[in-house]
Amino acid sequence: MNTTLFDKDTAITESVLNTIAHMPTTSLPVLMADDFAHRLSDRDFMRIAVLLAHKGYNEGGCPIGAVIIDNSTRCILGKGHNTLVQESHPYNHGETSAIRDAGRIDFSHTTLFTSLSPCDVCATLLYMRGFSRVVVGDITSASGNEALLRSKGIQVDILEDLNGIELYARFRAEQPQLELEDWRGVAATDAKKEN
Amino acid sequence: MNTTLFDKDTAITESVLNTIAHMPTTSLPVLMADDFAHRLSDRDFMRIAVLLAHKGYNEGGCPIGAVIIDNSTRCILGKGHNTLVQESHPYNHGETSAIRDAGRIDFSHTTLFTSLSPCDVCATLLYMRGFSRVVVGDITSASGNEALLRSKGIQVDILEDLNGIELYARFRAEQPQLELEDWRGVAATDAKKEN
Repeated sequence: MNTTLFDKDTAITESVLNTIAHMPTTSLPVLMADDFAHRLSDRDFMRIAVLLAHKGYNEGGCPIGAVIIDNSTRCILGKGHNTLVQESHPYNHGETSAIRDAGRIDFSHTTLFTSLSPCDVCATLLYMRGFSRVVVGDITSASGNEALLRSKGIQVDILEDLNGIELYARFRAEQPQLELEDWRGVAATDAKKEN
Repeated sequence: MNTTLFDKDTAITESVLNTIAHMPTTSLPVLMADDFAHRLSDRDFMRIAVLLAHKGYNEGGCPIGAVIIDNSTRCILGKGHNTLVQESHPYNHGETSAIRDAGRIDFSHTTLFTSLSPCDVCATLLYMRGFSRVVVGDITSASGNEALLRSKGIQVDILEDLNGIELYARFRAEQPQLELEDWRGVAATDAKKEN
């Protein structure tokens, strides 16, 4: 008996991907069996990362999300989004959030999908934890650390998601100080200069 | 009326510093008024970082601690210790733990005391968040990123704590695989090679 919500005949729609994005990682087996995970393409995983970015935006936070999958099974091992605002967390970006969610696993057989090009801290964490592959969904809004990751032996693929790029551009226009804090800390913002 | 436990006449003993180490940061005003914090020396703050490392070790974790203080008031703004084991957290080192504890503050007027020389991720986070000063309590067990921090304009001081160095050496001898995982991830450990 198949006890999961999504099976081999389920169409992969935006609603299906958004349900996956919002479900706690440990509860994902409630949604999908392994054979369903195998049907998800790289573009689908990037959509989940972007839908996590939307979740963060809707919570009043910075819209960046990330998903980590096993290269063989395609199962999701970790996912998350930026929580600078939501947790008052000064460096929990999409990537750090997804890695924290995955916990103490061997990242050398995994791929991380991030909705935005990684910052220096996240790029360093990606090579220090031995990721084999990183897929970047937006090098239009920011870029630069792809070369560092490649120099460390990580396969880096660009798979831009136009909706994600649009969302990040909207956020940057609406909240430039928050965006600056997310990259460079309170020390870099006008709020500091005014104090 | 002075309602704090420690006042201007309290001797700064190991027990006093250990109580400070264990008290949640937001509850530190219960222990000490501002004038007490001013009496604590750099060496005292490093002792607190090392006592946090001992706390982590006693919990079965990696013994590295860190403390963040305001440069002017000398008040503790954040502190913590490595929680790789305790939280199954793949990158919560002493420094990341203390920065998470401090939250969304301006780190440009703060000093971070770490019981061990920072890894690549923590060193990157320290300059990305604009710390003005970092004090390192152990460059015997590990070192290397002091030069990077200085190149980013951060004042780096070495203030070795022999008890902290001894604790870290004991941990390294007892749990070499755990120590390796803490620096380089599961991908670098024997556990991975055996799978």
